Amino acid sequence: MAIQKPSIPKGTRDFSPTEVAKRNFIINTIKNAFNTFGFQPIETPSFENYNTLMGKYGEEGDRLIFKILNSGDFTQGVNQEDWEAKNPQKLTPQLSEKALRYDLTVPFARYVVQHQSELTFPFKRYQIQPVWRADRPQKGRFREFYQCDADVVGSTSLWQEVEFVQLYDTVFTALNLKGVTIKMNNRKILSGFAEMIGKSDKLTDFTVALDKLDKIGEEGVIKEMKERGISEEAIAKLQPIFTLKGTVTKKLSALKEILKSSETGMKGVEELEFIAQQIAQLGLQTAILDLDVTLARGLNYYTGAIFEIGAPAGVQMGSIGGGGRYDDLTSIFGLKGISGIGISFGLDRIGLVMEELNLFPESLNSTVEVLCINFGDAEALQSMKLLKALHQLGKTAELYPDAAKIKKQMEYANKRNIPYVVIIGESELAKGTFVLKNMLEGTQKECSLNEVSNALFQ
Amino acid sequence: MAIQKPSIPKGTRDFSPTEVAKRNFIINTIKNAFNTFGFQPIETPSFENYNTLMGKYGEEGDRLIFKILNSGDFTQGVNQEDWEAKNPQKLTPQLSEKALRYDLTVPFARYVVQHQSELTFPFKRYQIQPVWRADRPQKGRFREFYQCDADVVGSTSLWQEVEFVQLYDTVFTALNLKGVTIKMNNRKILSGFAEMIGKSDKLTDFTVALDKLDKIGEEGVIKEMKERGISEEAIAKLQPIFTLKGTVTKKLSALKEILKSSETGMKGVEELEFIAQQIAQLGLQTAILDLDVTLARGLNYYTGAIFEIGAPAGVQMGSIGGGGRYDDLTSIFGLKGISGIGISFGLDRIGLVMEELNLFPESLNSTVEVLCINFGDAEALQSMKLLKALHQLGKTAELYPDAAKIKKQMEYANKRNIPYVVIIGESELAKGTFVLKNMLEGTQKECSLNEVSNALFQ
Repeated sequence: MAIQKPSIPKGTRDFSPTEVAKRNFIINTIKNAFNTFGFQPIETPSFENYNTLMGKYGEEGDRLIFKILNSGDFTQGVNQEDWEAKNPQKLTPQLSEKALRYDLTVPFARYVVQHQSELTFPFKRYQIQPVWRADRPQKGRFREFYQCDADVVGSTSLWQEVEFVQLYDTVFTALNLKGVTIKMNNRKILSGFAEMIGKSDKLTDFTVALDKLDKIGEEGVIKEMKERGISEEAIAKLQPIFTLKGTVTKKLSALKEILKSSETGMKGVEELEFIAQQIAQLGLQTAILDLDVTLARGLNYYTGAIFEIGAPAGVQMGSIGGGGRYDDLTSIFGLKGISGIGISFGLDRIGLVMEELNLFPESLNSTVEVLCINFGDAEALQSMKLLKALHQLGKTAELYPDAAKIKKQMEYANKRNIPYVVIIGESELAKGTFVLKNMLEGTQKECSLNEVSNALFQ
Repeated sequence: MAIQKPSIPKGTRDFSPTEVAKRNFIINTIKNAFNTFGFQPIETPSFENYNTLMGKYGEEGDRLIFKILNSGDFTQGVNQEDWEAKNPQKLTPQLSEKALRYDLTVPFARYVVQHQSELTFPFKRYQIQPVWRADRPQKGRFREFYQCDADVVGSTSLWQEVEFVQLYDTVFTALNLKGVTIKMNNRKILSGFAEMIGKSDKLTDFTVALDKLDKIGEEGVIKEMKERGISEEAIAKLQPIFTLKGTVTKKLSALKEILKSSETGMKGVEELEFIAQQIAQLGLQTAILDLDVTLARGLNYYTGAIFEIGAPAGVQMGSIGGGGRYDDLTSIFGLKGISGIGISFGLDRIGLVMEELNLFPESLNSTVEVLCINFGDAEALQSMKLLKALHQLGKTAELYPDAAKIKKQMEYANKRNIPYVVIIGESELAKGTFVLKNMLEGTQKECSLNEVSNALFQ
C-alpha cells in the first residue's frame, strides 16, 4: 500500500485535547442551564431521508446539503435518459436517498410529528449535535460544526419568551461572558412597518437600510431607502424610528406612537412590553436587554418575538446566538397549529469571543493532576496501588509506562502541564512512603502511603 | 408542498430524552474513568478523505463505507468510458471524494501521524463519536452507532495492559455492572499454536473449532478440527489445551508446558503472566480476569495482548468490549515503529445489558424536579422569582407556560414524572409564601419565599 500524507477534508477540523476541553466547557455550561430550565435532550440521526431535508431551506440550501451516494450498484434503476444527459439535478435524487443533517430545526420538526403520540406538550427539548453544509469554507465558517438549540413547542405563552431571556442571561453569566446584549424585536412590529410603507415586499429593503443607521447616519439611510424604491411618503411616516433611542421603555413608548394605526404593529409592541416588564421585575445577572427594530433574522420564518445576541462591547464579532417564535414549523410534516419558540447558541463564535477575552479557566490546560515516575516494576506496582486510591478519590492520575530516564519522565510531566509528580523509588518503597513534588512551586514533601487523602493537594 | 409522512433512514435511531439520559449515563461514566486514568479526549471530522478510509478495512469494509456524493456538478471530470459502462467500482472514486467515518481507529492513526509534532508521547487519547456502516440493519446492529475507544501509542510497556484491565474494572464497577469477565489472550500464544500445528494458515480454523469446546465437547472439537484440515499429529500435540481449566495461574502453568518449544509462544505466556501477577497484587473491584486461549479478535491486527469483555453470567449477550496491542497502526500513514494498545466499550450492548439487569438509576426517568403551577401573570411572575432562586441552587425547575386548568397542569407534572409541584395562587402571592406538594408522597407544606433553600426537598 502506498504511503499517504494524511490530511482532512477542507472545512473540517480535528480537535486536540485542549480544544475539546474548551468546547466541552461551553457545551456543558449550556447543557447544565438547559437542564436547569427543564429542557430535555433528544438526538436525531446524522442523516435523514433525502426528501425530509430537500426543499426546506430554499434553492441555496438544497445545493449546500451533503448527499450520500447510495450503496451497492447505485447506477441500477437510474433513468437512462438522465444518465446520458449527465444532468446532476435529475440524477441526484436517483443516486442518493439520504443526506446529512443541514440544521437541527427540520429534524426536530420531523421528530415532533413522528413521535407526537409519545410526547407531552408543551414539549421542551434541546439538541446539541453537528450539522454539515457544503459551503465555501472561510474564517469561522466550517463544513462541519455543532448547533446548540433549545425549543418549546405547543404553547403560545409569552412566559416562554421571558424564560428564554433568562436562559440566555444564565448561560452567559455562567460562562463569565459578561455584558452581552440580548436584542429583541417582533415580527409583528416589522409587519406594522410594512403596513405603513404600504408594500410588504419592500420590508427587507427597509430593514436592511435601517440597519445601517449607526454607520451612515439618518441622511444616509434615507438616501439608501429611496434608492431601494421606498417612497418619500412612507419614509416620512416612519421617520420617528430614527429617533428610537434610550431605554427599552422609551423605545416602546415611541413605537406606540409610530405604530398606533397598525393593529398588528401594536400587538407586537404589547408583546415586547410584556417581556420587558417581566424582565425588569426579575432582573438579569450580567446581560443587557435591548430593543432593536432592525432585527429581522429569518424574516419569513419567525412570526412573533425575534432574538439576537450581541457580543460584549469592544469585541468584533457577529451575533453569538439568536432565535424567535414560529407558528408553523411542523406543518410541513402534516401537524398544524403547533406554535413554537426556539433559541440557539453559536458555539464556535462563543469560543472565539471567550478566547479573545481570555475567559477559559486555566484548569482546562492541565491534562492530569498526578504523574507517578516509573523506577522499575516493583516500584511501579507500588505506584499503581497509590493510583488506585487516587482514582477512587476522583483524582486524575497516571503512571509513566516505562522505567525511562527521570529527565525524560519529568519532561513528559512538564509538556503535559502536570502539576504534581509522585516519586516512589527504592527507599520510598522500603519505607512505605512517597515523595510528592509540586511542579509549579518546585517544593516537595514525603508522605506515608496511609495518608494519601490527607497529604495530597494541601 | 406535499405533506410527507415523517420517517428516518433504516438502521438509524431517534433518541428520546429518556434514551439520551441513559446513554449519557453510560458515556459520562466511561469518560470520567478515562479522564481519571489520564486519557485525553480528541475529536475528528465525521467525514474523511475518500483515500484515508478506503482500503483499510478489507473489501467488505470498503463496500460498507458510506460515500458522500460530490457537491455541484459531480458528473464533470468523470471518465466518459466509465460513465457509459456504469461501473460503480470505477465511478465511486470519481463521484465521491469524502466518506463517513467507519470506525475511530483509522482516523486516530491519521490524527497521530498528521499531528505528531504537537503530541507528547506516550499519547493517551480517548474518542467517543458516532461511526457509520452501510450494513444490513438487524436487532442490535445499526447504520449509525457510537464507538467509545481509549488508546495509548508510543510505548511497549506491559503496565499499559495492566492499566487497561484496571480501567475496565473501574468502568463496569461504576456502572454497577458487576461480574463481567475480562478475558485475555495474546497473539504470541496463538502464533505458538500455529508453530506447533506447522501451518499458520490453519490458525483461524483451529481457534474457531476450539472456541466451541463448551458447546460440543472435546470430541466434537477434534472432529471439527480434522474436518478443517488440521492433522492428527498437530491435534495430538495441542491436546493438553483441552484441559486448560481453573485459575489463570493454573492455565498459565499448563500453557508453559504446552508451548515450551515455541519461543514466541513462551513470550506470550510471559506477558500474560506479568499482567496476571500485577492484577493479583492490585485486585479488581467487581470484574473477573480470565485467560481464554480461543480469543482471537482481529487476528491480523493485534500483535500482543488481546482483550474481550463478557457480560455477567446469566446474561445472553456477545462481547461488550474488547481491544488489544498492535504494533503497526500508524505505518499506513507513514509513521513506523509506534506501538499502541487500545480498548473499546460496546455502548449499545452495555445499554441492553443494563436494561435487562435494571441497573439504570431511577432518577434518570425524572425530567425536572419542580413544576410551578401557573395561575395567571401576577402569580407566574412570583413563581419566576422563585425559579430563579431554585436555578441558582442548581435545581431543575420550570413554570407551566399557560394559566391552564389545574387538572391539565397536574397531568403534565405526572406524565413527566415531576416529583415536586409548587403552588403560588392568589393567597400565597399575598402572603409571600408557596405551597410545596410532594407528588410521590401526596403530602404538602406551606413555606416562606425567604426559606427556599432550607424548606425545599427536606
